Amino acid sequence: MENVISMSYGNGGKKTSMIIEEMIIPALGNDKLNLLGDGALLRTSGEIAFSSDSFVIYPYFFPGGDIGKLSVCGTVNDLLMCGSIPKYLSLSFILEEGFKIEDLKKIISSIKNTAEEAGIQIVTGDTKVVDRGHGHGIYINTAGIGEKVKGINLGKKRIKIKDKVILTGSIGNHGISILCARENLLESKIKSDCAPLNKIAYTIFKYGEEVKILRDPTRGGAATTLKEFVEGENFSIEIEEEKIPVDREVIGACELLGLDPLYIANEGKIIAIVSPEVSDDIIKDLRNIGCNEASIIGEVVDYTSSKVLLKTLFGGRRILDKITYDLLPRIC
Amino acid sequence: MENVISMSYGNGGKKTSMIIEEMIIPALGNDKLNLLGDGALLRTSGEIAFSSDSFVIYPYFFPGGDIGKLSVCGTVNDLLMCGSIPKYLSLSFILEEGFKIEDLKKIISSIKNTAEEAGIQIVTGDTKVVDRGHGHGIYINTAGIGEKVKGINLGKKRIKIKDKVILTGSIGNHGISILCARENLLESKIKSDCAPLNKIAYTIFKYGEEVKILRDPTRGGAATTLKEFVEGENFSIEIEEEKIPVDREVIGACELLGLDPLYIANEGKIIAIVSPEVSDDIIKDLRNIGCNEASIIGEVVDYTSSKVLLKTLFGGRRILDKITYDLLPRIC
Repeated sequence: MENVISMSYGNGGKKTSMIIEEMIIPALGNDKLNLLGDGALLRTSGEIAFSSDSFVIYPYFFPGGDIGKLSVCGTVNDLLMCGSIPKYLSLSFILEEGFKIEDLKKIISSIKNTAEEAGIQIVTGDTKVVDRGHGHGIYINTAGIGEKVKGINLGKKRIKIKDKVILTGSIGNHGISILCARENLLESKIKSDCAPLNKIAYTIFKYGEEVKILRDPTRGGAATTLKEFVEGENFSIEIEEEKIPVDREVIGACELLGLDPLYIANEGKIIAIVSPEVSDDIIKDLRNIGCNEASIIGEVVDYTSSKVLLKTLFGGRRILDKITYDLLPRIC
Repeated sequence: MENVISMSYGNGGKKTSMIIEEMIIPALGNDKLNLLGDGALLRTSGEIAFSSDSFVIYPYFFPGGDIGKLSVCGTVNDLLMCGSIPKYLSLSFILEEGFKIEDLKKIISSIKNTAEEAGIQIVTGDTKVVDRGHGHGIYINTAGIGEKVKGINLGKKRIKIKDKVILTGSIGNHGISILCARENLLESKIKSDCAPLNKIAYTIFKYGEEVKILRDPTRGGAATTLKEFVEGENFSIEIEEEKIPVDREVIGACELLGLDPLYIANEGKIIAIVSPEVSDDIIKDLRNIGCNEASIIGEVVDYTSSKVLLKTLFGGRRILDKITYDLLPRIC
């Protein structure tokens, strides 16, 4: 095998087969993927969740992960946020001519490990190659299928006044780690929080109908996610700055760079809205599985203009909107 | 709205919402997509097919179609080739900074028309933006879910000696049309055959267990598809050059450019292997629905070395391998 990807690795012929047979099947193979048909035949419970994301992150290796790990986590977590158990994943590469085969191997190995951790099988895929100058090493798309959990019914329409807003851990780590890695900024110890959220989500799933909505605050950060919850609805959400966990290093980096942690992407956290009756129990359970910073950060309030309000450390109130200008492009 | 895509269209915030709410939902919206969750909840029959492809074709507008039409057809056709009825599609864009919003609108409109023709609903999606010089206008990934047709069981293991090889129409049109459009070669009338294959596949599905395997010969062309059928199996396939339908213009272009139509990509044809008992009836049915060039091009032969043999016009025999060097990169 050569050292770098050339155009003929994308022609569907011998070299495409080499990637599949020498790199993908040995690492990711299973009875469904190994059939190498135009798609995979799967048996499911019937009620399924379906989600897809493309990943264009740069650099594709970063502290705490790489584009392979991220592309599995991203779709796995979206399936969990739909109230489903992740089962099957598709994996599509867009490789740029000149991309190192060595790097592709590392990324595939990381995909293998993350898929195992998340309990998801890669069952179908695709590889395309674009000419130099029309990519950035590697882009990945994953699509996933999950089986819906009975008794979990999530949606904005189920949110009620006085429901509590839970955040499962500190925010901002993913975005800041990428920014530091990309720009060689700061001697940073900040790692991405990129992780499959199965364990955390299953802990919350146990509360059934008391769970109203789940979302992992990736692009746009926690503020954008909360704003999406209130949009078009007859309630607002008020959160308290002092309750929001942010690592000291992230606060430092944000202050230095003029960024707001509420708008920085996360890849391993959940925002959940739940009934007030179960919120303390959920926090207790989350801490028991190691989410030491899980907190109730606010609640749904009877203020009909669909706002997200931040009660600041100084006692004032600030209205949070969705992200507009983005100081951190391509963080997922 | 501005005239071109800027980085902030990919940040998951206000501008990403503009693409979704002003362009995608009005064209493609339905009760599932409009919920705009992290994924879609779907009810299926349980036994499903799952397939995904990325599309990096250039130019993204070409005679007979565009990247939008192709990205729907590609996955719809893969689902059909698995013996399933296409139901649900995900749609993920990777846009390059500077891409014309006008072109994105045209592509979305084409996606709408093709999805309607194929009877598939777009239920979830994603939009990413990469900086100038790291894309080529637009790349699209689609993933699809189909419901398996009862009584259809496809696979190489079901192929038997004397089974017939059916080709549903002329080959080479897609690849040659793209090459001519890209290089401004020839004053060509050749159009891509890009089309959803539902009607043709359903006609073949009627023959149930008599249908052994289906494949649409895209990248690598008909020769590569046939070689994939025999690989690792105890039979060979012999096809006859004179039975293979190729349009006159495609033959002309291939001769001029030194290309072999058997290795040129198609996006609207099926190669089927079927029992000899039903092969003539299938051809009759296919001609009845307008596949005037549908032909039996060869058969499975008792020659155990997994070869594809071409009986040439001059009576010789040539061994066909998979595509190796590709004179036509990025044709899908």
